Parts: sequence; C-alpha cells; structure tokens
Amino acid sequence: MQTPFREVFFLSNGTAITAETLGLSLLAQFPDHHFQTRTIPFVDTLNKAHAVRDEINGCSEDGRQLPIVICTMGDADLMKIIHQSKALVIDPFGDILPRLEKALATQHHQPGQSHRIVNPSLYESRIDAIDFAMTHDDGGKTQNYDEADIILLGVSRSGKTPSCLYLALQFGIKAANYPITEEDMEYEQLPEPVRPFRDRLYGLTTDLQRLANVRQERRPDSRYASLQQCRFELKAVEEMYQRHKIKYINTAEMSVEEISARIIRDNGLHRIELP
Amino acid sequence: MQTPFREVFFLSNGTAITAETLGLSLLAQFPDHHFQTRTIPFVDTLNKAHAVRDEINGCSEDGRQLPIVICTMGDADLMKIIHQSKALVIDPFGDILPRLEKALATQHHQPGQSHRIVNPSLYESRIDAIDFAMTHDDGGKTQNYDEADIILLGVSRSGKTPSCLYLALQFGIKAANYPITEEDMEYEQLPEPVRPFRDRLYGLTTDLQRLANVRQERRPDSRYASLQQCRFELKAVEEMYQRHKIKYINTAEMSVEEISARIIRDNGLHRIELP
Repeated sequence: MQTPFREVFFLSNGTAITAETLGLSLLAQFPDHHFQTRTIPFVDTLNKAHAVRDEINGCSEDGRQLPIVICTMGDADLMKIIHQSKALVIDPFGDILPRLEKALATQHHQPGQSHRIVNPSLYESRIDAIDFAMTHDDGGKTQNYDEADIILLGVSRSGKTPSCLYLALQFGIKAANYPITEEDMEYEQLPEPVRPFRDRLYGLTTDLQRLANVRQERRPDSRYASLQQCRFELKAVEEMYQRHKIKYINTAEMSVEEISARIIRDNGLHRIELP
Repeated sequence: MQTPFREVFFLSNGTAITAETLGLSLLAQFPDHHFQTRTIPFVDTLNKAHAVRDEINGCSEDGRQLPIVICTMGDADLMKIIHQSKALVIDPFGDILPRLEKALATQHHQPGQSHRIVNPSLYESRIDAIDFAMTHDDGGKTQNYDEADIILLGVSRSGKTPSCLYLALQFGIKAANYPITEEDMEYEQLPEPVRPFRDRLYGLTTDLQRLANVRQERRPDSRYASLQQCRFELKAVEEMYQRHKIKYINTAEMSVEEISARIIRDNGLHRIELP
C-alpha cells in the first residue's frame, strides 16, 4: 500500500526561496514519506494572505491529513493570518528573530529585505562571474585564465558546466572549465592552455556506468558513449590528476550544490556575500 | 562611529547551503548591523565538530561580542558539540524536526539527505534544462523554441542570461532568451523566430540610468552605452511588449532570485522538485 502523500506549502512575502530551501532540507530528513509541495512567493498583502489561508484550509477538508506550512515572513501582520490556517505552521522567522533582536540589542527588524539588491557592487560581481563562466565554458576561450578563481578539468559530461554556473550564480566565483580531450590524453604534460595555472586547477571524474548512461542519452550507440571509450577516458584523466597532483572528486553521487560546496572548501575559495 | 561587526557562522554537516540561505535571510532583516559571515560545510565528524567549536570559542575571546551560529545539522551528536560553543546557537532543525516527527507520526528521521542526488531522473531534468539554457542563450539557436517553457525577451544587458541560468539550475525550467536588436525594433511585428510562441514570451526591461551604467562598464563611451541609445531601446521594447500584450517586468531593483520567482509566478510555470 502506498503511503498517502502529505501536502506541504512553502510561503513567503518575498521570493520564497528561503522557505523552499529550508523546507526541502527538512523534508529530506523523512525519505520514507511522500510529500506534495507547493511554493507560493510574494504573499505580500493582507488580501493575498487571506486567500492563501483559505486555500490551505481547503486542503484539510474531506478528512485529509493536516497540511504542513513552512513560511518565512518578514511581516508579523501577514504571518498572523497564516497562523490561522488549519495546518502545522512552521514559522522559523517567528522563532528566531526575537532571539537575534535580543542578541543584537535591536528592537525592530525591517521586513522583506532578503533577495533584493542590497549592494549593487556585489550584484555586479555576480553578473561578472556569470559572464566569465559563459565565455570560458568548455574551453571556449582560454586567454583570460589568469582572471579565473578556479579552472575545472574533466571529460565530456562529468559535471563541469553546471558546477561553473552554480559557482558563479550562487557565490560570485569566476570558474572556467576545460574539457580533457583524447588528444590531451596522449601527452604526459598538462594541456597547454591550463599548464601555467596548476595552482587553480581542480579535476572532476565520475563512475563508468553513470558516464556511459549520460552519454548514451546524448549520442545513442556511439563510440563516445561506449563503455570501452568511457573507461579509457576516466582512467586517463584520473592518471593525469594524480601525475600532476591535481585535487579531484568523483561527482557520480553528488548534486551540483554538493560538487560546488566541495570545490569551494577544497580550494579555500572566497564566496561573495549575497544579499 | 562605525558599528563593530558581529561574527556569524553558517554550519552544516552537508553543503551548508540551507544554513547560509536561511542565515542570510535572517541577517537581511537587520540592515543597520554589520556582519562578518563565514560558511563551514561538511562538518560531518566529531573531530571536525570539535575543531569548529574551538574556532567559534576563539571569536568570543578578548571581550568581543558573542558570535552568532546558524547550524542546520541532521545529526544530533554533532549538533550537541556545536551547542557547547560560546555563541548564540540557532538550531532550526532541532526546533522544527520534533514537530514534523510528531505530525508525521515518525520516530526517526534520517540525517544528511539534503542536497544529494535523491532522484536521478529529476537530476537529469535539471541538467537538460542547463544544456537548453546554454544552447539557447542570446538567440544563439532558435530552432527548438517549441521545447522551451519560457522565452525571455529584452535589450542587451537587461538580465536575460542570469535569469535563464537560474531558472534552469534552481528549478529545472527550460528557458531560452532572445535579444531584441535595433533591427527588430523597426518592425511592428514580433521578431520572426519568436513570433509563433507568443504564449510563452516574457519581457524584461530596466531603468535608463542603470542600463547605461552597466553598458558603460562593458563598452565605455560607446554609442551602445549612451543615454540616448539606451532610452531609444527601452522605449522601443516596452512599446513592443504592450503592442503584443506580452507580460514584462522592470528588473532594475531585483536580484536574479526575485526576477526568476516572478517569472515563475506570472507564467504559472512548474518547478521540478529538487532533492
């Protein structure tokens, strides 16, 4: 018998990204349960809050299980309305902000500031990092590697591009990536464009079967997707990393978030502080 | 006199993205205070937890103000060590998980599952969306617009590329973007490649001074960056949006997160549920 799913709402008067991120992390602690989640951002007027409350209440009719609401509201009046819902209402801001106010000896916090542009120059750094990642993707341009915070190496489809984009978007880190080709594998030395930058190289590798599966989806039944070719390439890059003492990780079981967080930690990279 | 800054730690046994996201949202409620934040991910052994605790304790010596620690740990033993720190320790999981366990009638939650690959097919959707955004950036390829969930329009430097990448990475949404050029502005009709897809077009615009500033950084003292040219282009695209009844937003004061959340809401887009 399948467990009935539980309805979960992520709410905020802003983007709801914080409610969603926290909420998904909490739900991930209960892998045996089924959840149906819904994110409702910009609940920023009394009318909208009333409408959302009524919608939540509709979910607990007909004997269904009580929904779960995870709500990060900067605004106490709006939060009061959500608290009237027939639901388990989780209100992290309500729990935490009074403790922070006390610690900071401040009476009033100012609502709704998160995920807006607080500091334009930080915003520019982030946009610059995105530009950099786009221009320096897949070895596209190799002239400005001296500006890179990190240069990822790896065979095709080992996770380089998503990692570079995430590093740029989330942390404002300038990440380039250089694909190791069969030609590069023939030489003892590092590929010429990355050779002067050994201190900022970082290798990605993955599992054989996973690489073959991902490539198979892209180019079915090709030499590129064959187990033999994938095995050869993975062995060659891992030997290259070891020969040149380049740190590397196996990305097979990792999300883009986890790959990025490990790259930052292993290389002592500086994250810009986003608003 | 400048307010002394307060030291803040974001900790987790995983990527610490949840701790950081929640923490930055909380700190954003106190815009008059200065914070120096540090994120420490992968605090996943007793030894590492002891080392971090000692580091935090080092911050409260010399009469400095008590640091703030925001820690999302799935593991109770590790959390116990962090709670020994001389700091204001915020432990959202410790506050919330018992309530969820009760609501779900579950005794045990399973630690450390967030931000790993829980569902490989969802992971693939996300990677596909990133591939799509890269291929269909800046009008680069216009053949597969029928596969797009959304197509962003806008003049150069109005925020199209970062928004498309964020939609792909964070939500698995396939977003293309098409730059409106001066040539496109000469015609009453929509540009030919996007014309068949009016139901999935969404316009971006921005403020005159902001556009001019951003362009000035890219191509100083060019016609492209001139107030006159920027004014002409913004007026032309806004008229185009209105003429064809295309929804649009002004991105001048918005972060990439906020632009993306509004695009999702305004177009009723479906976000994939990320682990």
